[in-house]
Order: sequence, then structure tokens, then C-alpha cells
Amino acid sequence: MRTACLVALFVLPGLSIAPLLAEPPAATPSDDTTTCLGCHATTHPGLVADWQAGRHALVTPAADRARPAAARRLSAATVPEALAGHTVGCAECHTANAGKHADSFEHNGFQVHVVVTPEDCALCHAEERAQYAGNLMAHAYGNLMGNALYADLQRLVVGAATLDGAGRVAHAAPEASQLDDACLTCHGTKVAVTGQATRETVLGEMAFPVLAGWPNQGVGRINPDGSMGACTSCHTRHRFSLAEARKPDACEGCHKGPDVPAYKVWEVSKHGAIAAAHGDSWNWEAVPWTPGKDFSAPTCAACHVARLADGEGGLLAERTHRMNDRLPWRLFGLPYAHAHPISPDTTPIRNAAGLPLPTDLSGEPAASFLIDGAEQQARRARLQAVCGACHSTSWSDGHFARLEKTIAASNAQTRTATQLVERAWSSGLAIGPAAGGSPFDEAVERLWAETWLFHANSVRFAAAMSGADYGVFADGRWQLTRRIAELESLLRLHGAPAVAPEAKPSSKAR
Amino acid sequence: MRTACLVALFVLPGLSIAPLLAEPPAATPSDDTTTCLGCHATTHPGLVADWQAGRHALVTPAADRARPAAARRLSAATVPEALAGHTVGCAECHTANAGKHADSFEHNGFQVHVVVTPEDCALCHAEERAQYAGNLMAHAYGNLMGNALYADLQRLVVGAATLDGAGRVAHAAPEASQLDDACLTCHGTKVAVTGQATRETVLGEMAFPVLAGWPNQGVGRINPDGSMGACTSCHTRHRFSLAEARKPDACEGCHKGPDVPAYKVWEVSKHGAIAAAHGDSWNWEAVPWTPGKDFSAPTCAACHVARLADGEGGLLAERTHRMNDRLPWRLFGLPYAHAHPISPDTTPIRNAAGLPLPTDLSGEPAASFLIDGAEQQARRARLQAVCGACHSTSWSDGHFARLEKTIAASNAQTRTATQLVERAWSSGLAIGPAAGGSPFDEAVERLWAETWLFHANSVRFAAAMSGADYGVFADGRWQLTRRIAELESLLRLHGAPAVAPEAKPSSKAR
Amino acid sequence: MRTACLVALFVLPGLSIAPLLAEPPAATPSDDTTTCLGCHATTHPGLVADWQAGRHALVTPAADRARPAAARRLSAATVPEALAGHTVGCAECHTANAGKHADSFEHNGFQVHVVVTPEDCALCHAEERAQYAGNLMAHAYGNLMGNALYADLQRLVVGAATLDGAGRVAHAAPEASQLDDACLTCHGTKVAVTGQATRETVLGEMAFPVLAGWPNQGVGRINPDGSMGACTSCHTRHRFSLAEARKPDACEGCHKGPDVPAYKVWEVSKHGAIAAAHGDSWNWEAVPWTPGKDFSAPTCAACHVARLADGEGGLLAERTHRMNDRLPWRLFGLPYAHAHPISPDTTPIRNAAGLPLPTDLSGEPAASFLIDGAEQQARRARLQAVCGACHSTSWSDGHFARLEKTIAASNAQTRTATQLVERAWSSGLAIGPAAGGSPFDEAVERLWAETWLFHANSVRFAAAMSGADYGVFADGRWQLTRRIAELESLLRLHGAPAVAPEAKPSSKAR
Repeated sequence: MRTACLVALFVLPGLSIAPLLAEPPAATPSDDTTTCLGCHATTHPGLVADWQAGRHALVTPAADRARPAAARRLSAATVPEALAGHTVGCAECHTANAGKHADSFEHNGFQVHVVVTPEDCALCHAEERAQYAGNLMAHAYGNLMGNALYADLQRLVVGAATLDGAGRVAHAAPEASQLDDACLTCHGTKVAVTGQATRETVLGEMAFPVLAGWPNQGVGRINPDGSMGACTSCHTRHRFSLAEARKPDACEGCHKGPDVPAYKVWEVSKHGAIAAAHGDSWNWEAVPWTPGKDFSAPTCAACHVARLADGEGGLLAERTHRMNDRLPWRLFGLPYAHAHPISPDTTPIRNAAGLPLPTDLSGEPAASFLIDGAEQQARRARLQAVCGACHSTSWSDGHFARLEKTIAASNAQTRTATQLVERAWSSGLAIGPAAGGSPFDEAVERLWAETWLFHANSVRFAAAMSGADYGVFADGRWQLTRRIAELESLLRLHGAPAVAPEAKPSSKAR
Repeated sequence: MRTACLVALFVLPGLSIAPLLAEPPAATPSDDTTTCLGCHATTHPGLVADWQAGRHALVTPAADRARPAAARRLSAATVPEALAGHTVGCAECHTANAGKHADSFEHNGFQVHVVVTPEDCALCHAEERAQYAGNLMAHAYGNLMGNALYADLQRLVVGAATLDGAGRVAHAAPEASQLDDACLTCHGTKVAVTGQATRETVLGEMAFPVLAGWPNQGVGRINPDGSMGACTSCHTRHRFSLAEARKPDACEGCHKGPDVPAYKVWEVSKHGAIAAAHGDSWNWEAVPWTPGKDFSAPTCAACHVARLADGEGGLLAERTHRMNDRLPWRLFGLPYAHAHPISPDTTPIRNAAGLPLPTDLSGEPAASFLIDGAEQQARRARLQAVCGACHSTSWSDGHFARLEKTIAASNAQTRTATQLVERAWSSGLAIGPAAGGSPFDEAVERLWAETWLFHANSVRFAAAMSGADYGVFADGRWQLTRRIAELESLLRLHGAPAVAPEAKPSSKAR
Repeated sequence: MRTACLVALFVLPGLSIAPLLAEPPAATPSDDTTTCLGCHATTHPGLVADWQAGRHALVTPAADRARPAAARRLSAATVPEALAGHTVGCAECHTANAGKHADSFEHNGFQVHVVVTPEDCALCHAEERAQYAGNLMAHAYGNLMGNALYADLQRLVVGAATLDGAGRVAHAAPEASQLDDACLTCHGTKVAVTGQATRETVLGEMAFPVLAGWPNQGVGRINPDGSMGACTSCHTRHRFSLAEARKPDACEGCHKGPDVPAYKVWEVSKHGAIAAAHGDSWNWEAVPWTPGKDFSAPTCAACHVARLADGEGGLLAERTHRMNDRLPWRLFGLPYAHAHPISPDTTPIRNAAGLPLPTDLSGEPAASFLIDGAEQQARRARLQAVCGACHSTSWSDGHFARLEKTIAASNAQTRTATQLVERAWSSGLAIGPAAGGSPFDEAVERLWAETWLFHANSVRFAAAMSGADYGVFADGRWQLTRRIAELESLLRLHGAPAVAPEAKPSSKAR
């Protein structure tokens, strides 16, 4: 097969596929990339073909720079001269920022790194990288792993459960492989070089770095160059398709579970029905993206990310990779829904009780860490500008007014469930944090956690995107109130004394 | 932007998009609609583009009338002359039936209403409107809100749960916003004018009505003109696409939850697999719709709604918007599956015990309110005629015989679960209706309710449309029998005395 | 309509639709098939049109034989001469192997059988039939019905639950209709002739066989000729589309439930996202199938079934219809995940305790019935060759190393859950197998069963195909550890004495 590789090296120019887009002619790969392709077109034909089908293989950065500003894909003020004149191929990304990548290794005369990072992408896509650095998602690894309460939750969910001598369930610290396979699949692993391995290949014996936490494409991946994030979470290798990132399936991988059922809700909404009916005739690649002309119902990307045009030369929304730029509320309750955190690094947040949570157990938000009402209004206005392409102001005002009432109502239900678990703690039925116990290890505590983690969240996502079922019978209000009934029933069964409820359920979370 | 609006007024004719369908030339909007478009093409570009992509913007009622009867989209014997000669645009719908709409308001010289209703659509689509008025769905608001038992259920699921002085969970009457956001999302809200608001717009200050219960597209929406229903539930604004209503995604929004998992069952059926494989090459717009020629596996609309042709000039099925015209059974148990109600208004129904339910707790149907066996046979025959396009009689006979056995078997399981909850009531473990309690507020009662509301329903839908998983492990028989085991276990734990089961589980529901 | 049939007989040649594929001209149906079509094009127009759209109606076996070996659809060394020269129509399949079909009946001068079986398909597709006979799926009926433990499970899940005189739940033997409607929908029914029925048809009175277990397309269907399986499980009638079988929707019908959520996991994986984004531009019909050229992300068929080419004349993988040829592990735990069984007939398997299970309750595999490590390595190598089209060796090595750790970790959690149920049995809280009870009928046992049947399975499928949510919050580790907490809580509530846990959880399942 070595011969095949060498032959491929010479015939490769003939391999190029017909461009899908009308672009300046004669866009060719660099010599270095051509050398890479010489072997990899044979050893990884699917990978190379996928790259060939994408825009990186068809357009040079210089050609993109020549387009009108609103239609450009790259955002860097200047692109390094060495990159500008060739298409963007293997060498451009896998040898970029030489010297910064701990996973870099000598490979047939090139210093190559396996894990391409946001820093590499930023050579051409600087604005997106900067925005994304301000995105909660970029911090998803640290926000999870650096929070003592969430670490406890991970131990109880991911760690090995064994029986101790007294027959009680004990939870071990999670193995690294299990963390990587569970929460960190979405949050991102920490990728680190742990050694070197020598393997027999079609070109003889070769050495490769051995990587812990690999493979992974989590949104907050800690890369060997110290950067955070994986652009491939949404723009998968090696086509890096804009259309793909604009389809809700890109988000589905991490936003379909009962904790954050955004995809499922969208799918049953009228927006989802329209996309299912007509989406195959939409122009998923246009930049900017024009409602009505290019698509007729929003996907995740339309509301939260994309640069949208009004069809008359104006912009409805500027592109952002800080996904909460158009979101006043964090619907995801911890345990109550609340105004979005100011900083994407949430590890410094402490609630009134000193716990690393954005709200306390009474529902009071840790206000100094969260955006204020004015910022909430500004973000809502940005989102409503998107609605306005197709909906009247009274429609979208009615929608958001109802959503905010549902946020308050679902927070109040969480408060009632919390009062019940507090009674379990005060009565000794379960060992709560005040007595040094975990709030997540006992059956009664899991009941409580599901009221907010699954059901109040589901109710809010359903309200935000009009996915009726998820607000009622599909993990919504039915299950939320059923869990409350179960909690009360368990307390009664165990004879827990009634405690006077607090003055009034608080739902002041901004 | 005012200038932009005025300019748009003049250039609009040049805006028209290429017609998608070959139709008589020179179909143009009315002068009134052209005036509307003058501003709204700028202020709501997505909305206008969506309308332009639809048939309403391309064809006049007169042109449709000239087509062969079986291929017509409109059904009114005569269309008002003022409407016949222009395409169907903004003014045709939003100023129709002037004087009947409580939400009508003066808007730039026009008397406009926000909420277009079935009465407006009926000017051209009279038959569909008449059929739909006989559809259970049109009555979905009243059938829910006018039934004391369902009102109690809504209170317990949607109302705020708080702890009373004794530490017991108390349920408040639901807030209007929460009713609108929960059950009424699908059932339809009551839309009413509550005042007027003045807003700064691109054309200066303008006044608009303030609407309660808005936005909403529920199937039984109570409109400001007093009519019931929202054609936009399935034919969404402003394209009003036939293809969209024929795709199962139109139904998915309200028929995917565990209570009525029709969409999920269809999706995993062979019909769903065939649609996934070949649906993108089907003709979703043909009228009439011909199995084999236009599509190769049925969607919801094919079995339950569409006018189907046999390919030789005959009809397999006439179009109906009374969705149970081809359905002998209501699979949705209340609490037992039963023959369909005679009247779409189910509020007068009383079972033997005087409760507003179509069956009583022993399984006996409230027969005088339900269609009889002859009518069931007629409806089954209409449905089997559809099956006959692709399946032999022995295939479809076998299918329906098995379904009817599953209806009986699942009703019998519900009877067993009901005997267990009755024992909880008689033993004092829970406070049942006989003692003045709600049958839905205690944990043990929720267990019972899930046996029929989620699991027996799922088993029956799976049987009706061959969606195996939903009959067994996915919310089906496994969960149904698990709940029965839980009920029994709870009774034993509490020492509830065994009571002699009734003579024999009744599954006489017709 | 009889006239219509006769007329159709003459005009049928004009009915032929334009071929979809460039093939030798003049491929025509046999005279016998033309006679069938004479009536059935009228009586079952959808069925006939579906067949006309498929390759069987367009290509003769002889023409397929003339293609290069790697591109052929049929695999038989020789095709019976009588079949070679005509397209494959009604008569070719429904009159094949005359005399072997118990459901054969005289029909207008032909001896026709209703149920076309793998033996009939094998006339042209001999290799696929032989491979499939070695597939677990072909044995799905017997493996379920011939296993005493699974029969017990079926009784408790599918049989009627009634209350006995003491108020205890008793489970009757399942009715045949309910077995057919539940587990056998996927596993396959036993189709048998139970009599003959005479029906009035458009051609006058005719007699047809009455079939028990019909309709059904389960993977292990027992056919009236004694054969096992239904090719139509994946290649549905009457188009028998390769594209359809290659789409994951073909597998979805039986692989979406919580017990085996393969489809759901794939859907949320990056593979699923890429297919959703670009699948409509793939070539789903190419034989062989080339990653990168024909498709850019694998479906179920790509990894487990299809003949894959490397684009340079070589094969990445040979076609197989023994679906575990590329699978070292059976992820589906019984109750622990284990190496695949050697024989597709699993009824002889006995674990150390003599139970018909591939592992015993301590986690020890019934090793002599399972493939050994060398065979596991060979199967993994076949699968990794598929990965290699797009992924580096270090990527796929990392993936499989992590998967194998998750198999071990999930088995260990199952062991802990099993220790808890064993304590319930030993303490008398539940009546276990040692005391003559079923392990599946009591609430506490259902809790235990869900830990492995739903949650450990889900965790493993999520690991195998990178579907994050299903490993954590969507039926995964959260629910697995919640059930363990519930089990412990129940034991404590009932005062079950602590028992010393066994030396160490075994997860030695190979």
C-alpha cells in the first residue's frame, strides 16, 4: 500500500471533485497539504472526501476576504499571508501555531498536532473564537469539575456504587474513563499527552502520541494547547459545514435529555413542523441568512447564533457565538431558573448560603453574579427582533409575557418540592447537607432533584419554544406534581412531623 | 423606514416570486392586499415571503373552481364574487366577515382583525369547516374546561402546589397563564380582547387590541368571533401548505406525549420507515392523493383525512375533517377505551355512576352516548378501504382482529389496576371520590392513572399502527404491569386488607 | 370491476414507469406475473406501484449476473433458468418452491402462497440467506419462546393480571393474540394455517387460507414452510429497497426502546447529525458502498452489514447478514453484557447456576457458550476497519478502550443492584427463585430488572456509539443509580438486615 500512497501523490490533482459553489477558479491546496493528501487520501479516504466536499477545500481565505463584509465566512481582520492564497487543508490546521501544542509530533517531516483547537481556527475565524470564549459552553469543563456540589453529583451518578460492610450503598470516586464517557462527553474532556506509542502502518513503523480524554468533541474541551472548546462540536470534521451547524441536529446531541429537552421541544413546535415540511428546499448555506427568503422557520442557530438579514440590506441580528447574547433567562434551574450569569466562568458564584449555586434553596438568586434587568431587556429585545421577521409585536409580547409567568410558576413548584425535602432532612428521614450528607444520594433526594432538574426545566423549555407535550404529560407538569405527591407520601409514611411552611414560596429569581 | 414602506408599495409587483405551479397567468393580489404588502413586506418580511411561497399567493379562487371537482382545493359551492378574481392575500382573510370579530380594529383605513378564524376560511373552504365543526377537536376547549373531573385534574397538575399549615400539599386554582401554557396549548385557549395598547411603530404611534390567550393555535381555540378551532393548527401561517398538513409532523405537536403517542408509534412502524426512506420523492401536493403513485406509505393524513384516489378515476376515500370518520374506537381510555362518542360535544356524557366519563370504573361504557356497532363497522370499513390500496383483505382483517383483542386485553388490565385503587380508597390508604377526595391527588392515585392514561393507551396505539416498542418496553406493557406491581406492593406495605375482587374484569367497552 | 381487471390485463404494458436506473433495455415481467398484474394493478394499486418503483421490476437476474461481482445484488452461484430472463414479479416469489408452503392455495389457476420466505428469496440471494441463518435474529422466536425464564417474563408482562381471592395479583398465561402483539411483533410470530375462508371479491367468490400470527414481519418469524425470518423486516414489500435497509429507520422499529436504544443513541451522535445534515445528497443505492464518496457518516447498515469499498478497488468490509460478525460484545445484558454467543440458537445456554442465561447473577459469563477473546479481537478488527475510513487508529483505539471500560463499569453497577435484590430475597421481602418465586413479578424485582434491562444497556449503547445523553440523564447513569438508591431505601424501610457484600463485584464477563 506504500506504493499506492506514492502513486496517489502524483495523481491527486486529478482527484479533485467538481466545486459545489461558484468561486474564483484555480483555488488549490498548499504543497504541504498536497503531501498530506498523498497518503491520507488512501489511508483515510472517507475523511479526505468529506473535506473535499466542504468549503475549506474549495475557497481560499483571500477569495473570501474579497466578498462583501456581510457575506464573509471568515472574520479575522487579517489572515496570515502564508494561509491566504491556498485552500484550507490538512497542513493549514494540523501544523498551525507550531510550538504551542503539547500533542505535536514529528510525522514524515512535519510537526503535526492531532487536536486542532479554537486557537488554530481563530487564525481565520477570530471573532467567533473571541465570542465563544465568552460563552458558558467554552467553560463547561471547569464549571462542572471545579464546583464541589456538581463533583458530588458526578460521584453519585458516575462513580461505582458498592455495598459497604453494613450493606449500605457507598459511592467511589469516578474513574477517569467514566467521567469522559458520561458528563464530559458533552462538557468536554481534558485531553493530555500521556506517552508515545509505536505502531506498524502502511508506511512502516511510526510513532504517535497517546492521548488521555481522546476522542472527544465536547463544547468545553481542554485542549493540549490549553485552549477551551471544540469547534467540531457543531461543525464536524472534516467538512466543517455551515449547513450542519444550522440544523438543529447539531445541537441535539447534548440538548435532548430530560434535563435540557430543547431539541425535543423545538421538534414538536410549529417551527419544527414547518422545518420538517419545507426544510429540504431551504438555502442552509446563505450568509447572511434571510428569514422568508432562505428559510421559513427558525432552527436553534437562527434564534441564537446566526447573522440574519431583513432582505433589504439591513441586519435583523448580528452573528454571535456567545449563545446567551439573545437570552435573558437561564431556563436550566440550579435549582431555580434565573437571570444569566454575568461571567461564563461560574465557579466563583456563591448563593446566600455560601453554596456554589446561582440561586439558594429558597429561590433567591445570587444577584450580584447575574445580569441585571436592563441587560435582560436588551437580550430579550435582540431575540424579539428575530421573532419580528414573521410575527407581530403583540404575538411575541404575548409569548414572552406567558413565558415569564411560567418561569415564576415553575420556580414556585420547585420551592414546594424543596420544602418537602427540607422536611425530610429536618426530620432525619434523609441526611441533608446541614448534617454533612450529600443532597443527591438518597432516594427521596433523587425525587426532589427530578422535580427541578427534569420537570421544571421541561416545563420552561416547553413554554419558551411552544412544545406543548413537554409542558404537561411528557416529563412536564404531570411528572412534576406526581413527584411532589410522592415526596409527601413518603414523608407521611415515615411519620415525618409537619413543619410550618415558610412565609411564602419565593420565586424572585430575576 | 416609513419611506421604505412607501417605496415598497410601488416596487412590490417586481417582488413577486416565480410561481411554483403552472397556473393561469396574471393572478394578482387585490388592491387592498397590495396596500397591506406595501408596509408588511418590509416590517414582516419572513411572514410575507412565506405567504408568497404558498398557493394562496399564486392562484385565484376562480381558477381553482375551474379545475375538475376532485382536484379542487376549495369546496364552497360559490365563492363571494369580490374574492374570486384575485389571489388570497392579507386583506381577503384579515378583513373578512367584517363586524363579526371582537378583535377588529381600525388600522390605516382598514377594519382589520388579528385572529383569522374557521368562519373566515369557510368563505372558500366551507365543507372542511362544516366537517371540522363535527370533529372532537373543534370542541377540545369546552370538552376539557366544561368537565368537572378534568377541571379537577387540571387543578392538580397545573395549579400551584403549596404546603398548608399542617404541611400537606394544597393545590390552588390554576392561573390563566398556566392553563394557556399547559393543556390549552393543544386544546386551544379562549382568545378575548382585554383592552387596547398604543405602540410606537415605524409608521408612528398606532393602537392595537390587547388579547388574552394569545398567541395560540390549539385545535379547539375559542375565537373572538365565537367560532371554535384554528385551521393553523395543521396548516400553519402564512403558507397554509397542504404538504405540511399531510406530513405527520403537523400532528406530532400534540400527539407525541405518553398519553397519546400516535406520532412515535407511526415513526417506528414500517409505514414510518418507508416514509423516512422514500418520502422526499413523494408528491405531497397532489389532489386527490393516490397511493402508489403519489406516496408509498400512509401518514396520519392519508388514513384519517385525505381524499384518496385509486389511480383509475375512483376514490378510495372521501376527504374528511371529522377525524374519527374512519375510526371505530377511541383508543384514548377515559379510563377504558371505548366506541367513539356520537356527539363531538362530550360534556353531556355521564356514566352509570353519574360521572362525566364515557366509561365507568368497572369498564362499562356509557353506551347511549357512544356510536353503536353498526356505525363502528361502517367506520372500520372506510379505514380498511385505505389499507386495501396496498394490503390484502386477510392482512388487514388479521390486523384489526388483533387490535380489537388488544383493546379488550388492555381494558382488562386497567380494570385490575382500578380494583387496586378502589381497595386503597376502601381501606383508607387514600381518600377517594366516595369520601369526597380527588381521584388524582395522591401518589397511589397517580400510579393508577398512569396505568391507563399512559400505558394502556400506549399499548393500544402500538397495536393500532404496529409500533412494537410502544406496546412493550417503551411505556407499554412492561410499565403497565410494573405499576400494578407497585400498587399491590404499596397496599401490602400499608396493610390494606384484601378485598374480594369483583366477579370478573369487565371489558365490555364496545 | 371485473371488466376493469380484464382491461388492465391488456393495457398493462403501457403502465410501466420510466426506469430509475440505466439498465439493459427490454426487461419485462414473465407471463405469469403479467397475469397477476392484470387484476392486482386494479385491486391493489399501491402495492403494484411500489413494486414497479423497485429494482425487481426493472432488472432481470441475468442482467445483474452480468455486472462486476462486487456490484451485484444477487449472490446465488446460479439462478434457476426459468427466473433469469424476466424481471422479478408476483409469480416469481409467490409461486416459488411450490409444494413446500403450507399456506399455498389454488388461486385463479396458480398455486400461490401468501407468505414469501427466506427460502424463496434464497433462489437469487443465497449467500445473504445463509448468513442470516447464522444470525441471532433468525432465531429470535425460539430464543424467546424456548427459554423458561423469558417465558416467565412474558407471562408477567403480557399475560392478564387479575386479583385472586386473597387480593393478590395473579398472572395468566398470555393469550396468543397478545404474544403476537407484544414481543413477537419484533421477534416474529409463528405463522400457521388454521383454516380456509371464502370471501366475495371483485372476481366473485374466492377461497383464501386463514393464517394465525398474521400479519407479521418479525426478524425470526416462523414461516409456513418451516423457515425462520422475514427479509421484509428491513427490505419492506414490495419495493425491497436497498436504500431503505441502509437507512437507520429500518432498524428503528425494534431498536429504539429503553432496552436497546441503538437508534436513539445513533440519532444524537455526530454520525446522526451528519446524516441529518447531508444524508439527502448521499447515494444510498451504490453497491459496493464507498465512505466519503457515497456517504459521509455511517448508519447501522454501514457498520454492521454493508459491503464497503475503499474507493480504490479494495474492500473495507465484506457484506454480512450475520449482524454480529463485526461485534465483539453483546451490549444487551442478560443481565450482564458479555461476549457474543457462539451459536445463534441460544436455548442450550446454561450459566453456572443452571439458568438459561449467558451470565450468572454474580456476573460470571457462561464462557463455554460464548466466543473467546481471539474471536472478539477478530470481530473488533472488522469493525475498526470501517472506522478507519474516516478516523485514525488512535481515535478508534481510544474509543474502544473507553467502551470496554464502560462495559466493565456498568456490569459492576448491575452486580451491586443484584446484591440488593438478593438481599430482598434472602430477607423475605420478596420471594426469589430459590424460594420458587419469579424474579420479575414483585415491585422490588422490577426495580432491579430496570437497572440492567434499561439503564446499564442504555449506558453501554451510549458508549458504543457516542450518544451522550443516553449515558447520563436519558435512561442512563442517573436512572441506574436512582434505582439502586430506591432499592436500598426499600430494604431499609422494610428493615431487611444488612448482609455482607460478596468479596468483590465481578465484572469478568468477557
